[in-house]
Amino acid sequence: MLAYKAPLTDMKFLINDVFDFQSHYQSLRGGEEASSEMVDAILEHCAKFCESELSPLNQSGDEQGCHFENRQVTTPDGWKGAYDQYIEGGWQGLSFPTEFGGQGLPLSLGVFKSEMIGTANWSWGMYPGLSQGAMNTILMHGNDKQKDCFMQPMVEGRWAGTMCLTEPQCGTDLGQVKTRAELNSDGSYKITGTKIFISSGEHDMTENIIHIVLARLPGAPAGTNGISLFIVPKVNINDSGELLERNTVYCDSIEKKMGIHGSSTCVMNFEEAKGFLIGEQNKGLHCMFTFMNTARIGTSIQGIGSCELAYQGSVPYAKDRLSMRSLTGTKQPDSVADSLIVHPDVRRMLLTQKAFAEGGRAMLYFACQIADKMMDCHAKGDTQAYDEYDDELGFLTPILKAFLTEAGSESANLGMQVYGGHGFIKEWGMEQIVRDARISTLYEGTTGVQALDLLGRKVLLGKLKTFKAFVAQIKQFIKEHKNKKEMKPFIKVLKKQVRQWQWNTIKIAYKANKNRDMVGSASVDYLMYSGYIVMAYFWAKMADAAHTKIKAEKGLTPFYASKIQTAEFYYERILPRTLSLQATMQKSPESLMQMPEEGFTNS
Amino acid sequence: MLAYKAPLTDMKFLINDVFDFQSHYQSLRGGEEASSEMVDAILEHCAKFCESELSPLNQSGDEQGCHFENRQVTTPDGWKGAYDQYIEGGWQGLSFPTEFGGQGLPLSLGVFKSEMIGTANWSWGMYPGLSQGAMNTILMHGNDKQKDCFMQPMVEGRWAGTMCLTEPQCGTDLGQVKTRAELNSDGSYKITGTKIFISSGEHDMTENIIHIVLARLPGAPAGTNGISLFIVPKVNINDSGELLERNTVYCDSIEKKMGIHGSSTCVMNFEEAKGFLIGEQNKGLHCMFTFMNTARIGTSIQGIGSCELAYQGSVPYAKDRLSMRSLTGTKQPDSVADSLIVHPDVRRMLLTQKAFAEGGRAMLYFACQIADKMMDCHAKGDTQAYDEYDDELGFLTPILKAFLTEAGSESANLGMQVYGGHGFIKEWGMEQIVRDARISTLYEGTTGVQALDLLGRKVLLGKLKTFKAFVAQIKQFIKEHKNKKEMKPFIKVLKKQVRQWQWNTIKIAYKANKNRDMVGSASVDYLMYSGYIVMAYFWAKMADAAHTKIKAEKGLTPFYASKIQTAEFYYERILPRTLSLQATMQKSPESLMQMPEEGFTNS
Repeated sequence: MLAYKAPLTDMKFLINDVFDFQSHYQSLRGGEEASSEMVDAILEHCAKFCESELSPLNQSGDEQGCHFENRQVTTPDGWKGAYDQYIEGGWQGLSFPTEFGGQGLPLSLGVFKSEMIGTANWSWGMYPGLSQGAMNTILMHGNDKQKDCFMQPMVEGRWAGTMCLTEPQCGTDLGQVKTRAELNSDGSYKITGTKIFISSGEHDMTENIIHIVLARLPGAPAGTNGISLFIVPKVNINDSGELLERNTVYCDSIEKKMGIHGSSTCVMNFEEAKGFLIGEQNKGLHCMFTFMNTARIGTSIQGIGSCELAYQGSVPYAKDRLSMRSLTGTKQPDSVADSLIVHPDVRRMLLTQKAFAEGGRAMLYFACQIADKMMDCHAKGDTQAYDEYDDELGFLTPILKAFLTEAGSESANLGMQVYGGHGFIKEWGMEQIVRDARISTLYEGTTGVQALDLLGRKVLLGKLKTFKAFVAQIKQFIKEHKNKKEMKPFIKVLKKQVRQWQWNTIKIAYKANKNRDMVGSASVDYLMYSGYIVMAYFWAKMADAAHTKIKAEKGLTPFYASKIQTAEFYYERILPRTLSLQATMQKSPESLMQMPEEGFTNS
Repeated sequence: MLAYKAPLTDMKFLINDVFDFQSHYQSLRGGEEASSEMVDAILEHCAKFCESELSPLNQSGDEQGCHFENRQVTTPDGWKGAYDQYIEGGWQGLSFPTEFGGQGLPLSLGVFKSEMIGTANWSWGMYPGLSQGAMNTILMHGNDKQKDCFMQPMVEGRWAGTMCLTEPQCGTDLGQVKTRAELNSDGSYKITGTKIFISSGEHDMTENIIHIVLARLPGAPAGTNGISLFIVPKVNINDSGELLERNTVYCDSIEKKMGIHGSSTCVMNFEEAKGFLIGEQNKGLHCMFTFMNTARIGTSIQGIGSCELAYQGSVPYAKDRLSMRSLTGTKQPDSVADSLIVHPDVRRMLLTQKAFAEGGRAMLYFACQIADKMMDCHAKGDTQAYDEYDDELGFLTPILKAFLTEAGSESANLGMQVYGGHGFIKEWGMEQIVRDARISTLYEGTTGVQALDLLGRKVLLGKLKTFKAFVAQIKQFIKEHKNKKEMKPFIKVLKKQVRQWQWNTIKIAYKANKNRDMVGSASVDYLMYSGYIVMAYFWAKMADAAHTKIKAEKGLTPFYASKIQTAEFYYERILPRTLSLQATMQKSPESLMQMPEEGFTNS
């Protein structure tokens, strides 16, 4: 069985040596609580919980799955027990305000926690994860009464939450939402309709589940401007928050899926269920974007987790399994054959996983430092700085979501590949990573949807403003490090890549002005292309931090040496993927669009 | 449910217009039987069987899987019934000699059949498929008595067969085989050992199963030069072929796998089971290569089938599902949204599947024309010509196997991606294609093993002879078509690609001479790179054939137009993948090899 070990050394390297989270936390209002000792203690306690409680339930949860009967969902054996421990430890409220019973620590600490949980057992992590999405929505858009009513039990983890967006006829295209909301005489609403793909829509972990639901008011404008957002509790409550009778929202069935079997994916029927409007009428989609952005960053964690877990799974096998001899001569003369790890192509696969896991982690930690600053600006009422950080994070979000989940699927598949035929067998646990990872490029907006968001909205609609700001940041790094001898190989390549990134972006903008199909035809290649360059920037930052540590400690410790070697691998063997992508994304949409619909058949 | 439709138009286009199989068949001894009418009739009958009998059992077989109890395997409901129909139709013997009850038709017709079976229901096709591997081995290496005894019941399909190579400690590295064979007084052998991953090792379809087993004789040399090959029947037989008592070979368990659930993957225990030597002592691996090469080409069919089935599954969804509006303006004003197929990136995914399915099919049909010629040379005793064809096929085999199965996995994943979140749900059938396809890059030699075979053995060890011969063939095509106006865009690109392929190959050969790790570090990128160029050659051939047909028929029929447009798509958007691969494969192995083993950890 695959046992997860939290990569604390790497996490602390990023936190301390690459991004200096200590100075960062000291700059945040209330951030002084997050002292170095506190951060270490949180990481270590969380690691222990994930390693000893969640990881052992990952494979059994996949085998057993969720059970559905009489509108009720039973989660796999042991899952509720782990959840009880989780809420007893106060983990659900780690980054939520103290006034609602949380620990009030910066958001980024919640992300470090989510990374460990999500890597140890992604499906289990969906239950508290979705709940946090619901909590964020209420916190940002709910009125005081709603916050008073719902936040504390959710922060404590006694109640869970969901996000109900998708319907049978629409997922991406939420303008097609049909669920209806009608005003009751008491100011509440009757919600009627069917929602599908509702993660954690029903389960046995908590006494109540708070659904956040998109629905239409009577006479609302068609499309996305006529959608409102509602709170619909599974069990009704009175003003003092006591549970009353069951609300008329029911789970109709759960989906049979390729993976994440332990996570319930529910069809939810709302049968004149009682609900409460959040925010303004017809502004529901706007409110939902708060959730979607955090959910997208949350999903990027699944990508990183897939890389990490697949890497952790395949390294020992590559070291233990004996097969063939090295082409440069026998390496283990006392064994019947050499280990897999002597073979260059096996190393290529392992290093790809490692480079993606660690590079992705760096991208994520950087992003959540921005998110911390946004929360701080929000608390301080500094809207201008908030908007700037929001733009920067908005630019990075689709890259994190799509690029890192694609990398996660690739790494999971490489993990299987290292095992050869054994990778296909369930008991090793490698194929589960592939199945679980597979959803990450689909939900919370497919890779194609993220790519349109990046290129169409964030880059082109924003007239390249956030793109240029991010490029300027890399250029600043280049300027500061170009004279460091040990950084020259990286800086030289990075400089060239960034210059090309600029030119390629300008060329696409020009072409898209003439033909809007250019946006769609270039988008996915452009996103992946951008992802490789962004990751190259963070690999350069990590290499620099490692060199600095080596100098300071006057010795090449294996960890820092390995960091630099992985950076070199990334620059040599992964980054050149940009060559093909920059060629294909610049092609005219003609080769995609010329074929009439009836051409799409060959039988 | 996903219903397979045999792509007969495309198959006939290749058979008649691209490769002129009619002239080819007329050149083969006994090939005159394969008249145009006969070929059409076979294709249509087989298509009907696959569409109406096998395809409907594909999804139910995945859900139900094989059942194991008391050393016996029960295949999914309906599978034996379909098998009975298959043997009643005489399909198993299609390409086997008439003297053993077969139809004596060329091998290629058997491949066309296998493609349809394998696309409709790959797992079901494993049972007759493995049997054909065993039959080929007996036919090529068995003595007359063995042929007389085993061939007829196997050709008739009353008996099945397996190939028993892998053991717990070794798959690729067969030199580690431990299974023992000891001579009995009657000239037979006692076989003792454990084999794993034995496809069709036990099932309920036939009254007997003939295992072909690798084992070691006492005192045999260590490694691959000490392995012999044996026939071990499940049920012993007397000289007249009548069934006697059960032999002591038993299925111990079946594997729980990611996919191909309907195919039994067995752990087989040989407990002093009675066996018969095939071929010479200690030459077992040589004999086995016959099987392995056909098995590898057979596995490439799984790649093509995955592309085809995923394409067939995603096209209707892309046409029916309404989501968002085209960026160039509303296309379906009467609908609530436009179809997915208006979006350029959805078309990119569909066209990628289509280009791989049809390009892969062309590569396969070309390869089986060579195989036909080899069989013909074998029959005529023309060993020199045989060896030349063998070299050509040997060069193409690892490319077919690895490149097309990687393309199959990619296409299967794109098929899911077109469905968005629905792709992850079992009922649509798209995720099954991904799970089933996933094994194809693992068994019969992983992609890494194929890549070493291509670059290390076929190209470098062969001093580029077969490589150059294949390049000469493409150059001849270029020469013949460079002045055709409509072919110029293809020829220009192909010419450049082939020139680079030559240079890149020579450069790698030079570098590998200095550092043998270059072979392993370049191999997978080199194989994929070569695959894209080989497929480009066949897309150029198809475009040319389509242009010729359009001229002859004085009109642009949708099929031929679509063929040319798909060729253009391939050249514009798939072939540029060579740019990155040719960069990475030329890199020094240093970035893979420098990290010490202890560097492979980050926790």
